[in-house]
Amino acid sequence: MLSLKKIKELRDQFISPSLSVAYKDPLYIVKGEGQYLYNSNGKKYLDAINNISHVGHCHPEVTKSLHEQSKTLNTNTRYLHENIVIYAQELLRTLPSHLQTCFFTNSGSESNDLALRLARNYTNSKHTIVIEGAYHGHTAATMEASPYKYNGQGGNSAAKYIHQIPMPDAYRGRYRENSADITEYYIKHVESILDSLKKKDEQISVFISESILGCGGQIILPEGFLALANKTIKKAGGICIADEVQIGFGRVGSHFWGFESENTVPDIITMGKAMGNGHPLSAVVTTKEIAQKFNNGMEYFNSFGGNPVSCAVGRTVLEIIEKEKLQENAYLIGKYLIKGLNDIKKRHNLIGDVRGRGLFLGLELIRDHERMAPACSEADQIVNDMKERGILISTDGTDRNVIKIKPPMVFTKDNADQLIDTLDQLLIKKKYN
Amino acid sequence: MLSLKKIKELRDQFISPSLSVAYKDPLYIVKGEGQYLYNSNGKKYLDAINNISHVGHCHPEVTKSLHEQSKTLNTNTRYLHENIVIYAQELLRTLPSHLQTCFFTNSGSESNDLALRLARNYTNSKHTIVIEGAYHGHTAATMEASPYKYNGQGGNSAAKYIHQIPMPDAYRGRYRENSADITEYYIKHVESILDSLKKKDEQISVFISESILGCGGQIILPEGFLALANKTIKKAGGICIADEVQIGFGRVGSHFWGFESENTVPDIITMGKAMGNGHPLSAVVTTKEIAQKFNNGMEYFNSFGGNPVSCAVGRTVLEIIEKEKLQENAYLIGKYLIKGLNDIKKRHNLIGDVRGRGLFLGLELIRDHERMAPACSEADQIVNDMKERGILISTDGTDRNVIKIKPPMVFTKDNADQLIDTLDQLLIKKKYN
Repeated sequence: MLSLKKIKELRDQFISPSLSVAYKDPLYIVKGEGQYLYNSNGKKYLDAINNISHVGHCHPEVTKSLHEQSKTLNTNTRYLHENIVIYAQELLRTLPSHLQTCFFTNSGSESNDLALRLARNYTNSKHTIVIEGAYHGHTAATMEASPYKYNGQGGNSAAKYIHQIPMPDAYRGRYRENSADITEYYIKHVESILDSLKKKDEQISVFISESILGCGGQIILPEGFLALANKTIKKAGGICIADEVQIGFGRVGSHFWGFESENTVPDIITMGKAMGNGHPLSAVVTTKEIAQKFNNGMEYFNSFGGNPVSCAVGRTVLEIIEKEKLQENAYLIGKYLIKGLNDIKKRHNLIGDVRGRGLFLGLELIRDHERMAPACSEADQIVNDMKERGILISTDGTDRNVIKIKPPMVFTKDNADQLIDTLDQLLIKKKYN
Repeated sequence: MLSLKKIKELRDQFISPSLSVAYKDPLYIVKGEGQYLYNSNGKKYLDAINNISHVGHCHPEVTKSLHEQSKTLNTNTRYLHENIVIYAQELLRTLPSHLQTCFFTNSGSESNDLALRLARNYTNSKHTIVIEGAYHGHTAATMEASPYKYNGQGGNSAAKYIHQIPMPDAYRGRYRENSADITEYYIKHVESILDSLKKKDEQISVFISESILGCGGQIILPEGFLALANKTIKKAGGICIADEVQIGFGRVGSHFWGFESENTVPDIITMGKAMGNGHPLSAVVTTKEIAQKFNNGMEYFNSFGGNPVSCAVGRTVLEIIEKEKLQENAYLIGKYLIKGLNDIKKRHNLIGDVRGRGLFLGLELIRDHERMAPACSEADQIVNDMKERGILISTDGTDRNVIKIKPPMVFTKDNADQLIDTLDQLLIKKKYN
């Protein structure tokens, strides 16, 4: 086994410098099991952040189905195979009935890229509304639709067909929860973009939004916002994409998909991450009408997408979510975490806000409760200190002052206690600000 | 097991209509082994077309390493792990020494998309030169760079920063092999684009080309063309991408990479397909300088890319290529196939041209040797008839009149004989034109 020092050295030498490592003192992880990761010295870490290892690291049923199918057949979708159709059918059962056509891909980025292509083809326009702080993927087209990136370090200004609305952040946004008309305020920004397009005789193409804002800072949208925004877009002839890459597959607890808790039905949904529990598997699901218009003679073929192995893995993940009641677990443990975190919030001024749904949680850290200055370096230090104490979390949000908690869905009440207590102790013992 | 009829029905109902199935009478394939595929009735097919199952369908060592690593750990590259660095090192050993930085992705499309981003960032320009008939992927940005798609059915015209040169096709192109100055003719098109950019005071960004044209019709570039084109682009400050997604990993026989047989060294190479033998694995390799300029504060993170499982699979594929001497096999069997196909060409007027390198071969079918009208429906019929006789091949090229042969690299002399004899018998017995 290579030493940590040697790996670091080889990584500096051979791997893209644009890829950063977590933690000031990086982890050399060699084993995963359920909600735990182990480093090269055998130290055990509670993983409270990996939302890809959805049903738990190295779930034996997932690795088994991966192995069995890969021993039998792994080829492309030019031949008929039952895995792709059965998996599609099972997936569609979790979705509203108007969403009935699947495209299989290999990453959330590929899915969002394809979703934009579908919408732009349908509307014959590129005008896209995005939410400040959003991230939708690393392809050229999805980067253009990601203010998190184009407004961030090294970013360029937005393309002229990208229109950004302020983040509907009820906690620290331009308009906040103490105002009854918060939804109206943010919707006005959507309307104003639509108005200005109309004046120029231009057609809106698409509104893309996560159902809970992930990279934006684990932000729950104001009640009714997403439903009204989608309605407004549709009225103007636009298409609505729900980016469920980080959110879907029961993570929000109350529902299988994030958009369901927002009482809205999108035209296209994109999924990934959790879908294959680490195996590169993702999808786009849309209506027959949108898929049919896309079928204009130009083929969409994806070499690996929808192969029998990926679909076998996807089926097994769905089965486990159901069999192990992981959505219910996310609901219960999520509630428990929110309550516990709100309890410790009372004694720690640094915690400004505790929010989330199910096992998709954010803890926003602020330096003071008047100006609400983001506690960025503090959040970073806490994440590193928690790691030293055996718990893996990380930060997000445009100011990186939001601690995100989105563990494998097998996270238990004991795990939640350990997380809350460790954080509490840390905040008691150390002065972060 | 679902019936073929039921699968067809469910596929029509739930899967993207833009995804077509091979053959008039589709195959229901349930098992793969080496260079063979088996349908649901146990019928055995010789696979002479799957260039993803590079070391053979379901190679036991690949499935073993996939299984072993997936039982141990599959997480993202935010932690240190030896697989990614060892694999990068092994991969870089196959490449010229100036190519020393790896980015890992999940598909050839992701790789070409990233390669375009790298080049455009480096040159601060989007002006891209592409070759007529080229296909580089299904993301929005790679579709824009794919004349095979944007000039094809359902396509739009090229974006204004995409500049296309005619396909340097020595057989049926605008300028042909009987002219000594064929390379000069096609290079003039490159120069003319560069001149017109210069006049407008615009900077060239990038020239992207496969080292052998795949979708274009398995076309070997005229001698010296790629080297001179790359040299001309570089002189103008542009970046050269070698798209090796279909070509790399020893397939051309004489070399490990296609660009090596063209005596040129690109600035960026992209790889995929064969790399993981069906597991979604791909990469971009470039120079330190280009990677460093991309590292401007904006991160490139890929959720699945470079994970321990994908890298374990990638390492095993490299090992097998070496251990089983598959590059040498591609060289020998490729030569044998070309000789055999040229032999039967003498008695079948329909075969206009036999070409290729190693196990990347094309058989161009024409209706007559004067006008060289493409024998499209004939090619399609032959592919279907060969399938009935237990051999899987397919067509490509902008006119779909080129039969492509790019089997798993374990293809044997006996397999080659079977392919040649079956085709010969078919052409003797049936009149296709």
